Amino acid sequence: MFEATKVGRQVSKTDFKARIPDLRTELLEVQLQLALHKVPVIIIVSGVQAAGKGEVVDRLNHWLDTRGVQTWAFWDETDEDRERPRYWRFWRNLPPRGEIAVLFGAWYQTPLVHHMAKNAEPAHLDAELSRIEDFERMIIQDGALIVKFWFHMAETDQKRRFDELSRDDRSRWANLPTKSGFSAHYGQFERLAERVVRATDTGIAPWYLVEATDRRYRDLAVGETLLGAMTARLARVGTDPAVHAPSVPILPNLAGARRTLLDSVDMTQTLTDEIYKRRLKTLQSKLNELAWSAYKAKRSTVLVFEGPDAAGKGGAIRRVTDAVDSRLYRTIQIAAPTDEEHAQHYLWRFWHHVPRAGRMTIYDRSWYGRVLVERIEGFATPTQWSRSYYEINEFEEQLSEAGVIVLKFWLNITEDEQLRRFKEREVTPHKQHKITDEDWRNRDKWHAYGAAVNDMVSRTSTQHAPWIVVPSNDKAFARIAVLEAITKALSKALKSGQ
Amino acid sequence: MFEATKVGRQVSKTDFKARIPDLRTELLEVQLQLALHKVPVIIIVSGVQAAGKGEVVDRLNHWLDTRGVQTWAFWDETDEDRERPRYWRFWRNLPPRGEIAVLFGAWYQTPLVHHMAKNAEPAHLDAELSRIEDFERMIIQDGALIVKFWFHMAETDQKRRFDELSRDDRSRWANLPTKSGFSAHYGQFERLAERVVRATDTGIAPWYLVEATDRRYRDLAVGETLLGAMTARLARVGTDPAVHAPSVPILPNLAGARRTLLDSVDMTQTLTDEIYKRRLKTLQSKLNELAWSAYKAKRSTVLVFEGPDAAGKGGAIRRVTDAVDSRLYRTIQIAAPTDEEHAQHYLWRFWHHVPRAGRMTIYDRSWYGRVLVERIEGFATPTQWSRSYYEINEFEEQLSEAGVIVLKFWLNITEDEQLRRFKEREVTPHKQHKITDEDWRNRDKWHAYGAAVNDMVSRTSTQHAPWIVVPSNDKAFARIAVLEAITKALSKALKSGQ
Repeated sequence: MFEATKVGRQVSKTDFKARIPDLRTELLEVQLQLALHKVPVIIIVSGVQAAGKGEVVDRLNHWLDTRGVQTWAFWDETDEDRERPRYWRFWRNLPPRGEIAVLFGAWYQTPLVHHMAKNAEPAHLDAELSRIEDFERMIIQDGALIVKFWFHMAETDQKRRFDELSRDDRSRWANLPTKSGFSAHYGQFERLAERVVRATDTGIAPWYLVEATDRRYRDLAVGETLLGAMTARLARVGTDPAVHAPSVPILPNLAGARRTLLDSVDMTQTLTDEIYKRRLKTLQSKLNELAWSAYKAKRSTVLVFEGPDAAGKGGAIRRVTDAVDSRLYRTIQIAAPTDEEHAQHYLWRFWHHVPRAGRMTIYDRSWYGRVLVERIEGFATPTQWSRSYYEINEFEEQLSEAGVIVLKFWLNITEDEQLRRFKEREVTPHKQHKITDEDWRNRDKWHAYGAAVNDMVSRTSTQHAPWIVVPSNDKAFARIAVLEAITKALSKALKSGQ
Repeated sequence: MFEATKVGRQVSKTDFKARIPDLRTELLEVQLQLALHKVPVIIIVSGVQAAGKGEVVDRLNHWLDTRGVQTWAFWDETDEDRERPRYWRFWRNLPPRGEIAVLFGAWYQTPLVHHMAKNAEPAHLDAELSRIEDFERMIIQDGALIVKFWFHMAETDQKRRFDELSRDDRSRWANLPTKSGFSAHYGQFERLAERVVRATDTGIAPWYLVEATDRRYRDLAVGETLLGAMTARLARVGTDPAVHAPSVPILPNLAGARRTLLDSVDMTQTLTDEIYKRRLKTLQSKLNELAWSAYKAKRSTVLVFEGPDAAGKGGAIRRVTDAVDSRLYRTIQIAAPTDEEHAQHYLWRFWHHVPRAGRMTIYDRSWYGRVLVERIEGFATPTQWSRSYYEINEFEEQLSEAGVIVLKFWLNITEDEQLRRFKEREVTPHKQHKITDEDWRNRDKWHAYGAAVNDMVSRTSTQHAPWIVVPSNDKAFARIAVLEAITKALSKALKSGQ
């Protein structure tokens, strides 16, 4: 598939100079328009060695208004990156809406390096490429434009370029801190590249192959292609970037048919005060120890707490945090997004808080807001929330693959019990701030929430990130159940090393 | 001064239990009120070893609404921390307005450890303590409450506590990843601590010494003290936290008296196109090389560009970025703050972007907005902007101490030249987006800006972070002057290792 990049395309100096002023004006104009329409743009620069990727990026920074452009290379991983799931650093560097990020190699770098160096299982590569496809689709459905460039040249041209570079010890090449040495295996790299490019050359995020031998041709091709892609994206502003219809089942609206998973939960379970106190002490002491062991073993934990208002999330979380050294955990309460969060994909802020190696993040409400409150209140369109089950499963799978222990708790209470607690809150001095008119209004949507929880649990309870539905009409019972589930999961993970 | 922490204070179990429910209610109430009034609270927990600092913090997390509390320890520095000036990590962890941060040791940890271990020069300790005083004052003037606890106990009690801890291999103590072993030098540590505590026991941020032998006394003392401090802060809401009057000189409003530094700049300097091109090429090539050398030497660079609208900041910056590999620099354009930035001290967002070791951050407008646009438009009160000269000098001194090369450019143009450029922008297609009504309005304030620039340069041009006033009526001249200043400063710094 790279034949077309070895045909000797070139552009004369005169032609190049004649086109540049207009091209720049047009690029600046479309950049400004996309910024006004809050479209984020991701430009990926990849390809064979010595193709001049750095030169191209410098050129783009020169042509565009750099005040809206951030360039990211991935050769200098920090330990804050290393201590988290692999994609954390990409999430970290995604452009906010209306800005442009130029990414060297991006998420293609690791699979290429990894599979050149280790000749890993072909199946692993396929899995990785399918992850990339999912990731790009997700970002594009959220409104982004992704423009992917692959720079290529014939082996003889590459050799000539290397000779040229090695004669100039001031060159960028001489200074680059890492060089892969793939050029010694031109054929092997090309075969691998073909597989990667082909598998990820999707309709929504196509690859643009650019012959890199002639610098003027290369840069002009990039400029024109980028201009074309940005202009086309601008023309689609206002249309829904997702083409598929939402998959919401239409269910018969009858009492018997409205039965959900939650209706099968035994809500009568309780614990006596004596048993509660004894087990609380034992479990908290055990959890304290396990948290330190996890720290030493560099295993992180993500705990998600969801449930109706007054289900006892705060109390259950406190029984966990009371047991864990305050240097090892962090509680994140999810409220309305800030404007920085709002300028990103909805999963961005949750990625942001993914714990470092050996720590615990407790999410008091979570990304599941997308399929609960956002679904019910209409903050997300059906298209948006219905595709998020897949995105969420993918996110949690990545956490799990990186060794993060993921547990999700749904604290379940009955409608009557909630009423009782609301009334109690209204008369207890230090609980009055917990009850608002909003809480009362939400009670009208009790059944809608039931249906949403039913869908959520059935679509996102996975082996690696199970939902644990906890009967919580009795607070003591709920807290012990939560602590038991956590200590059990931590013990198992630390024992098996899985 | 620690005698009062060795008198055997204690609280009975009954008294403790009797007070706790009310104390909690009152703490939650005042926490809620301070959150509503957007007051950030910093609680510093420090003191001798084995005093149970971790227990106290767990207790605070239990008593307060943890959803507004973040706990930070500083024993696990990352390389992202290490590659920046020392205070970067504290800025990173400051609480946003309305929230609480509990800091173990905070900025007191390093001076204590450093001076215990190395017996460094007493003068260094004094300098460090005066930095702390400045830092705390700055945060408090910005509205924060700082509550500092020092936990202390007699040597015999500490020994007994150690014996107790060493018998329990499940204890937090057994798990702590780092232990300083200062307890072997009780007397020496106490002398040092006294000096540190005394020198930083200011009226606005006093130390609270707490006898830590009896756990109930210790925790109750902390709870009551915190409640008192928070209640007192709440009572001061709405009053200006700064007591000093602004120091704005009242100048005679006459043409001759209005003369500023900028009036002495020779604005007639120009370069021919030929010389410009030749020197541009030489300087850019040199800068490229120097940027890589700085990367290898782990020397960072901070460049600040300020100047009137249309002074040519963008063009000058582009001549710099064109020369530097795009993986080594980052341009930060300063616009209106986001809500996350708004919830912090105004310097916070600039600290946020301080470059990693060996990189360059280019600030297109900067913290000097505080004493330019914010002063002139009244976005900052006179009290606020007038104290910021000191804060800014302190900030830049810290950068410089960490080895960061700091250069600040004021691109100067005349009023007539600005008018000419505004008109030109209106007729040039790819420049039209650069000119707004706002720009025209700002011209009315030309003289006010002149006076502000005069104050700014005279009060913040320092040895370690000089202002370079660049005559910019001729763009070519200005660009070359900027490149020359940068290459000269980089060469010098890299040669001397200073």
